[in-house]
Formats: sequence, structure tokens, C-alpha cells
Amino acid sequence: MSRARPIRLALLGCGVVGTAVARLLDEQSAELAARVGAPLELAGIAVRRPNRHPGIDPALLTTDAGALVARDDIDIVVEVIGGIEPARTLLLSALGSGKSVISANKALLAEDGATLHAAASAHGVDLYYEAAVAGAIPLLRPLRESLAGDRITRVIGIVNGTTNFILSRMAASGAGFSEALAEATALGYAEADPSADVDGFDAAAKAAILAGLAFHTRITAADVHREGISEVSAADVASAAAMDCTVKLLAICERGGTGAGESVAVRVHPAMIPTSHPLAGVGDAFNAVYVEAEAAGSLMFYGRGAGGEPTASAVLGDLVAVARNRLSGSRGAGESAYADLAVQPIGEVRTRYHVALDVADRPGVLASVAGAFADNGVSIQTVRQEGRGDAATLVLVTHVAPDAALAATVHRLAAYDFIRRVRSVMRVEGLPPD
Amino acid sequence: MSRARPIRLALLGCGVVGTAVARLLDEQSAELAARVGAPLELAGIAVRRPNRHPGIDPALLTTDAGALVARDDIDIVVEVIGGIEPARTLLLSALGSGKSVISANKALLAEDGATLHAAASAHGVDLYYEAAVAGAIPLLRPLRESLAGDRITRVIGIVNGTTNFILSRMAASGAGFSEALAEATALGYAEADPSADVDGFDAAAKAAILAGLAFHTRITAADVHREGISEVSAADVASAAAMDCTVKLLAICERGGTGAGESVAVRVHPAMIPTSHPLAGVGDAFNAVYVEAEAAGSLMFYGRGAGGEPTASAVLGDLVAVARNRLSGSRGAGESAYADLAVQPIGEVRTRYHVALDVADRPGVLASVAGAFADNGVSIQTVRQEGRGDAATLVLVTHVAPDAALAATVHRLAAYDFIRRVRSVMRVEGLPPD
Repeated sequence: MSRARPIRLALLGCGVVGTAVARLLDEQSAELAARVGAPLELAGIAVRRPNRHPGIDPALLTTDAGALVARDDIDIVVEVIGGIEPARTLLLSALGSGKSVISANKALLAEDGATLHAAASAHGVDLYYEAAVAGAIPLLRPLRESLAGDRITRVIGIVNGTTNFILSRMAASGAGFSEALAEATALGYAEADPSADVDGFDAAAKAAILAGLAFHTRITAADVHREGISEVSAADVASAAAMDCTVKLLAICERGGTGAGESVAVRVHPAMIPTSHPLAGVGDAFNAVYVEAEAAGSLMFYGRGAGGEPTASAVLGDLVAVARNRLSGSRGAGESAYADLAVQPIGEVRTRYHVALDVADRPGVLASVAGAFADNGVSIQTVRQEGRGDAATLVLVTHVAPDAALAATVHRLAAYDFIRRVRSVMRVEGLPPD
Repeated sequence: MSRARPIRLALLGCGVVGTAVARLLDEQSAELAARVGAPLELAGIAVRRPNRHPGIDPALLTTDAGALVARDDIDIVVEVIGGIEPARTLLLSALGSGKSVISANKALLAEDGATLHAAASAHGVDLYYEAAVAGAIPLLRPLRESLAGDRITRVIGIVNGTTNFILSRMAASGAGFSEALAEATALGYAEADPSADVDGFDAAAKAAILAGLAFHTRITAADVHREGISEVSAADVASAAAMDCTVKLLAICERGGTGAGESVAVRVHPAMIPTSHPLAGVGDAFNAVYVEAEAAGSLMFYGRGAGGEPTASAVLGDLVAVARNRLSGSRGAGESAYADLAVQPIGEVRTRYHVALDVADRPGVLASVAGAFADNGVSIQTVRQEGRGDAATLVLVTHVAPDAALAATVHRLAAYDFIRRVRSVMRVEGLPPD
């Protein structure tokens, strides 16, 4: 066993994840020391209410996070508070005083990762955040290291467990969104205020981080086109099943344009994917990320995206790497934003669409509908009529078309008197190229 | 763009993988330079027949691999020759003269990784080999870095594309082994001499490497219990399907024993797994590795396990990391063998078994069969009879039992006169714990 001086850690936050980190640091201390080459020593934990942590040595607890971060004897700060402030101020203070930082804070990384990276670079320290995306799944390190010699073309992820649970329940039971959400809440998969999950904010932050790493470009959450799942109906789910598809909330990061006009499109929205796609089988609260790269081909990473222990596993993996770097006086790979691609507006993003229209069942309707698509340059791949008379529905699937063209088509369709209702418009992803 | 001095590379071998590496180095040179912080320059390629490489600058080619490796101007040696010699001698020479090494050579790493690691450590250089296991799938880096703070309990992999293709074909078409092998050969998925794949040698080498990384213990190919797929019959595949299972060639690395008696068991053999298991859906020539860790839970990594481009992607990922280390004067994580666990003999390995017996259809047979299992301490979970009279078959699935107990049971059964044939004995994996 090494006799190197201990690497001293400050932990900011001691909720579900922080408690698991503290416990694993204790339980695995001998193995961690062997892997790092020096003991890891938890020197302090910043919490709001010290009396709420009965399993933790009270001498470690402090309510003064700023003072903890400023201590001279701390090597590495682990932040599991979440949210923008005070996390940002604390981490900039830590980096500014030469401490390396490990963060699980997707919101902060997606809003202002560039500032944190710049501070880490200026002070020659590490900023790692594997736990910020897809919990325990080793994803950021493979993207930024293993695939560093390849050219990633697309990343499609199921990165929010709450919404995946809700959509999986809807598919399994035929339930509507509200009913499935209530079940998710009752089982603890959804927060009392589920907006961050169901409206796609959480997935959008993760998409921004993934896109930045995959395409070597600074992407913030504001660059991500975002649609949640609250409008997904039991009818959409049934319609997907009829096409041998399933509905998933996807975070999609892809290259658009070519050459000097190359750009990055980042979007989060529900979409239909074929049941034969590897992502279709990712059920319940699991996460998975599907990566397409020019040389590597298709890859998928699957596992638990949330929870105290899985997230703590990711934090500890970063901790071993960062502690080893401290010992050897080196630094891991920093921000890579050299490509600096433009963000493609959602209107230019090209994909397929599933459109269901409740229509009057009379001659000429299909011709008029087809005309509306054609006038906007949207080519139809399949069309079928379901029901007759007052219950007639036209279900169309388009070839690949720009989002703006589809939006214009739907706008036109909605104005026709023989269309009683535009029942659903949903993107279709994961099919082979047109 | 950085003005750092170029990092100079020697490439040993220029077959399918080497050609793809050379091409990607050329095509991606600007991006690679941006990611590394210095240009990567291919300084020489050792080949056997220089006239066989029309797409390569002839000035780079040499038949004298030893002289290339000894050149003072080389920083990194990339070895894609395969086999034990001359690869080992060349790589030890490279490491001994301060060059970092990237290898795709699973056979060499599995036979003598310890010697190579020791040489790398003694000379303060890197030895990376992501491409040696599961081609393009980022696997070794996640195991040795992302999960470094966790405790891996089991690794189950489909790590040989040829056998997975054959077994997938058998399941899809009902074909026998020979017929499916012939199809794999015709399609280029199997070599003219398929023994390395179908007899499990290739998978065993990869299992040794995975087990070593997962359990921080030196494991060689000789430590791996190995059974191939040539005995897998169409009846086995049908029997698996009847149990809602599918047959896969699995590489399984797991912890055995507890406390001071803790050990590692590593085995490669065909096994039935439930169709609901994430590995069951891995078809054709794809690879996937399922990892269970105490904190992270279940993870899966999926992608292409072979082929020039996917393997080259893994080599280039290592190349970026190793080149960055050279520039910064640092080293990546070296061998980690501190746990030094014993290898558990196959006889002590505990799992479930599927046993099919062609029996005489007469009273008392089941009682005798059940007695043979009971006498050896093997508990039966389910038993069913298929067919009647001369076509009667008993199909049993056991609870978890040691391999030696099952072997003794089968030995006893084979001696009974009312058992016409022990039709198949196959392990069942991936079920929930007993």
C-alpha cells in the first residue's frame, strides 16, 4: 500500500447522492487507496441542516460551504447540490484556488460550462462531470476519450428515467399521460413538481452537455429545441404500436449541413422509433444512449440514469481519475470546443413525421391533404385511413423533410373545413435513411 | 491550431485494421491535431510484402519491423499484427526504448500482459489496448476508469461476432451448427479455419483481459475455462426457445467466495439466457458486454466487435489519449493487479443447468433421475417430459449448483440403462438469483 499523503476532499451537498458518495468513500477506502495510489480522505461536508445527517460524523459537517471550499487543505471539491447558485460561485471559488472539481450538476454545466472550463484551464486543474448525464452509465469519458479519434455523427439518448417510466407504462397498459404520471409519482419516480422531467428541461440540459462533447462545440441548454411528453396521448402510443414503433422522449444531437456550412442540431422531444431499434427495448426508468460514429459504427450505452448509488458510482470514477491526476501533477482532457459549429435552427432540422388527422369521410379529402403536403415540399411515404364516417382518421408518415415545411403543412391542414382535428404530429426517428 | 512538435507513430501491420488506421490518420489529421494539441505523423509502417499496399506512400513501408521500432524519432508504436511473436519482442523493444504502445493484440495481452505492463511501468510509458476487446465498443476505459470507484461483481459478454452470428442464424432458421457455420463462412463472418472463434479461444483471450481489469488481478487465457459452440445442436436452440431463452456464447467473469476466500471465476461457454435479458437481443455479429457493479447496478455496452473501421476507431481513441499524455509528460493508469485474487476452479463455479435426457418411458424413471440429482446435492427447479415412448425426453432445469456436482450427476445418469442418451447439458445464465 502506498504511503503517499492523503488526497483531501470536500463534499458540497449531502442528499441522496452525497450520502451515497460518503458511504462508498468509507466502505471502499482500501480499494480506492489502492486504485489511486494514496488514501482519499473526506475532510468536510457542506449541508444546510447538520442535524439531518445522523449517519455522518458531525465533526465533518458545516453549514459554511464557502469557508469549506476556501480551506487550504482541500484538494478536490465534489459538488452534488444541483442548481445554478450557489453551486457556480462555490465551484468558481474552488477552481480559482487550485482545487479540482467533480460535479453532478447538469443544469449548471449546461448553462455555463464554458466559464467553469475556462476557470479549470486557467488554474491547471480538472473539471469532471460524468455523473451529470445518465447517472452511472460511463458515457462522457467514452465520448471524449474513447471516440476522440473518430467522428461522431449522431447521438440519440433516452436520458430521463421519469419520462421513460411514464411512456413505458403508457405503452404497457394503454394508460393516458395523467394516469401514468400519477403512477410514477406514487412509486417515487416523479417529483411532486414533475415539470423538469416531463417538460424536457432535464433531458435538454443533458443533451446540451452531450452535444458539446460529441461535436467539440459550446452548446447551452438555450440552444436545445425542447418539447415535453405531456401532450403524448394514449392514441399516439397506440398509433405508434400499429406501425411497429414505440414512443420515447429522445435527446438527439446531430450534425447538419456540410463543409463550411456544417452545423449542430440539438433537440429533445417525444418521437416514434421502430421496435427493432436498440433504444426501443429500454424500459422503465433505465437510460441508454445510442451513438453513431463514422468508423465505430453504432454503439449503445445502457444502465441506470439516476439514483443515489448509481450517481455516486460515476462520481467515484471521476474521483479516482482526478485524484490520480493530482498525484502525478497532470490534468485530464479539458474542454474541447475547437470545432465551434453553428447551431442549426429547428426549422431546418430534417426528419420524418407521423401525422394523424380526423377527417370528414368524403371523396377528394385525400387529394386535398396530399396536395397540402406536396405544396410544402413534403413527400408522403405511407398513408392509411382508419375508421369510416365520423370516426375517419387519416394516418400519414412522411419522408425526411425540414421541420419548417412540416409545420407549414400542418398549419395549412388545420384550416381545411374537412379536417375536424389534427390529432397528433410526432417525429419518427431511428429508421434507415430514406 | 497548436504549433507543438508532431507526435510520430510507427504502425506494425497493415492488414484490414492497419489500413483503416492509416486512412483515418490521414483523413482526420486536422481534427486529431486539434484534439491532441499536436499533429500526429505516421513515420513508418512495417509490413511483410510492401508491394501489397497500393494505397500507401511506399516511402513509409519497411519490412524491417525491428529497425522501425528502434528508431529514435518514434514516440508511439501501434501494433495490429496479432499473435504472440514477433509482436511480443517488438513491443518489449518499443517499451524498453521509451515508446508508448497501442495494441489490438488480444492473444498477446491475454498470454503475457503482465510482462508488457511491467515494461511499460519500468520505462514510464503507456500501454493501451482498447481495440483488443470488443472492437469499437468503449469498454476497457470505462472498466478501468469510469468504474474505478465502484466494485464490479460480474461481467457477462458476447465478445465474439462470428459465433454470435452462427447462433443467431441457428435461432432464426432452425439450422444446425454446420449449416450456420457454412453460411457464416460464405458471408465472410468466419475464417477458413474457424477454430479460434467456434472453439472459444478468441472469446477466452478477451475474457482474460476483461477479468483482469474488472477484478484487479492477473488473469491469463490459461485461467479461463473454455467450451466452444460446435456441440450446440438445433435441438438445444429449440429447447432454449421453449423456455423463453436463447443460446449465446458467453464470456463470464465473476467473483466467487467471500472475504479472504474471495476468488475470480472466468469461463467461456454456450449458455441459455432469458429472452428478456438485454444480451438476448444482441444479434448477428454485434458484441455487447453486460456489467454488474455494486453501486452502478447493471450496465451494458453494445456495438461492433470487429472489422477494420470499428477496430481502428478504438485504436485512434487510444492514440489521442496516449499522444496527449506524451505531450503533457504524464502517463495513463497502468496495470492494476493489487487485488491478486485466486482463480476459482471450474468445479466450484455455481450456476444453473438445463439437462435434456432421452429416456425409456416407463414408471420409476423420474424417481431415479431425481434421485441422481439429489444424491449429488443438485436441486431441481423444473422438470417436464416431452414426447412419449421411444421419443420420450426429460428436460430438467436445476437451481444453482457447483459445476462438479452437476458433472457427477450427469456421469451417474449416463450409466443408467433407462437413459438412452444425455442429449444436452447447458448452463442457464442471467436469471434472477435463486
